[in-house]
Amino acid sequence: MNKIAIIGSGGMGSACGNVLTDNKNNVIIYGINESELNDLKNGKNKAYFNDLKLNKFNTTQNLEEALIDVNYIILAVPTKFLSAVFENILLNLKSKAIIINVAKGFWPKKFITVHDELKIIANKNENVVDVITLIGPSFATEIVKKQITYVAAIGQNYQNLLKVQAIFENNYFHVIPQNDEKGAIIGSIYKNIIAIASGMLEAIGYNINTQASFITYAIKEMIKYIVYCGGNRNTAYEITGLGDIILTATSPKSRNYTYGKNFLKNNNYSQITIEGVESIKMLYENIIKLKKLELPIISALYKIIFLNENPNKILIDLLNFIPKNN
Amino acid sequence: MNKIAIIGSGGMGSACGNVLTDNKNNVIIYGINESELNDLKNGKNKAYFNDLKLNKFNTTQNLEEALIDVNYIILAVPTKFLSAVFENILLNLKSKAIIINVAKGFWPKKFITVHDELKIIANKNENVVDVITLIGPSFATEIVKKQITYVAAIGQNYQNLLKVQAIFENNYFHVIPQNDEKGAIIGSIYKNIIAIASGMLEAIGYNINTQASFITYAIKEMIKYIVYCGGNRNTAYEITGLGDIILTATSPKSRNYTYGKNFLKNNNYSQITIEGVESIKMLYENIIKLKKLELPIISALYKIIFLNENPNKILIDLLNFIPKNN
Repeated sequence: MNKIAIIGSGGMGSACGNVLTDNKNNVIIYGINESELNDLKNGKNKAYFNDLKLNKFNTTQNLEEALIDVNYIILAVPTKFLSAVFENILLNLKSKAIIINVAKGFWPKKFITVHDELKIIANKNENVVDVITLIGPSFATEIVKKQITYVAAIGQNYQNLLKVQAIFENNYFHVIPQNDEKGAIIGSIYKNIIAIASGMLEAIGYNINTQASFITYAIKEMIKYIVYCGGNRNTAYEITGLGDIILTATSPKSRNYTYGKNFLKNNNYSQITIEGVESIKMLYENIIKLKKLELPIISALYKIIFLNENPNKILIDLLNFIPKNN
Repeated sequence: MNKIAIIGSGGMGSACGNVLTDNKNNVIIYGINESELNDLKNGKNKAYFNDLKLNKFNTTQNLEEALIDVNYIILAVPTKFLSAVFENILLNLKSKAIIINVAKGFWPKKFITVHDELKIIANKNENVVDVITLIGPSFATEIVKKQITYVAAIGQNYQNLLKVQAIFENNYFHVIPQNDEKGAIIGSIYKNIIAIASGMLEAIGYNINTQASFITYAIKEMIKYIVYCGGNRNTAYEITGLGDIILTATSPKSRNYTYGKNFLKNNNYSQITIEGVESIKMLYENIIKLKKLELPIISALYKIIFLNENPNKILIDLLNFIPKNN
């Protein structure tokens, strides 16, 4: 039987735990929040899912205990804690294990994706078999409700991707192996950026006619960047790109969409960490400014968010940028 | 100055009229509904737009009068009346004119698209310069509100497409020439079918996780049919495909989505004409049954709507059909 340690007692950690225990794996959830862990022992996680019923979990606040004889480690901690937590995991890991990461976006303060940085850090550790990232259109609440959900497992080694597929796969949760790491991960970055822009369009009075055409063209900008990075353009239209964009860029349930929608009312960038905003800054400073690659959506959002330029003017100029003749 | 006759006083006719008069064209709206025409004379159309303000229009109930010295004719009548109205137009047309059609889907009771059938009928008439169809993510109400909207003009002759672009183009309404007629028109047919399926998924309890992955894979089925018909697969990801699907398949504002959502409650296929339902029947009978091309979404919906099979079982089987390994 597989022994799986879930690191993090938040929404996505709990949702993954529920799928994995539905599949009769031996799961333990490690966390630092006692009330969440107590909830999980009793088959719920009120902070994230109100009264939704979960499976009852073994939990621990002792990382060493969580990692005993482990074959798979699900990394489900906020990006800002990842560095410290992952170093600790590597120090305490005594068995061969596949790392399954669910964090997206860039590593804090560093122009490298979470997936790539985890691979670099883990590379020195002989117990880490592989680092694989799960990406796809998947609100944690809907996973807990056993809504049919597809995600992609991102990595280079196909056999390892199939192993991850095998532990998760059941009648409502499906995992698709995807070895275009660059294409898939850029999808998971751009979807938040597109969602912010889509929310801002709603804020300045433009609804679904405008958003639908905007999203269609935004995917072309994403493809430009995927190709620039050496990824496969077709990945843009898989669940890691288009699928996740449909989920994120049209739904007020998305944090990034809501950020965009509320931006005009309360421009308080500094008070909250919005993944898409961090990504806009990273891409503007490292790609547009340094490499001179034109990415009009990123430029426009950077000007609005970081240079306080007029959102109406910038967004309408951006829409006029859509080419009229193909 | 261009003389433009709009045939039909409904939502899309009025919305096109508003764009064209904003652009200072000489526009006359022909219709048969006196109260709608009276409204339009007074700068509104309550039946479609409540109290939204429109431009004030010249209107007529006399088709011959509408067609005097006309250069462009906007065909904006329901598909079931198109045959009779178009024959009448051709009989009364005395000047050279481009026909601009806004009806989508199949010709009534005939396995040919509206666009193609209009071209065949018009082919015998020397005053018809071209038949061009407008397709794209465009709720009429949002056009009247001057929301930024993109549509594609579909046709073979690029110069004529540019002429249509020229009469419509302004700071909120944009027209993109598109000469892949098959790819674009199949997009406008499939979006309604995908919307029905998406609405049914909501009805049986599956929300955006499921819908987002479903739509991503539904576009691949659409591409299979586009390629089968000799169209260009890339057109699936333009505004006539993906753009219109984003608008239609995620929005309860769409008639087809709503039909799918309410289907389980009131399966009253015979009482209303839903374009997507007609298209499912056409494609099932003519392509799946006769040509043996596998289109699993169409087959599934046909079984649910026309053979009264269990929607839960059929839709869950359909979702399991999504390939797990790429």
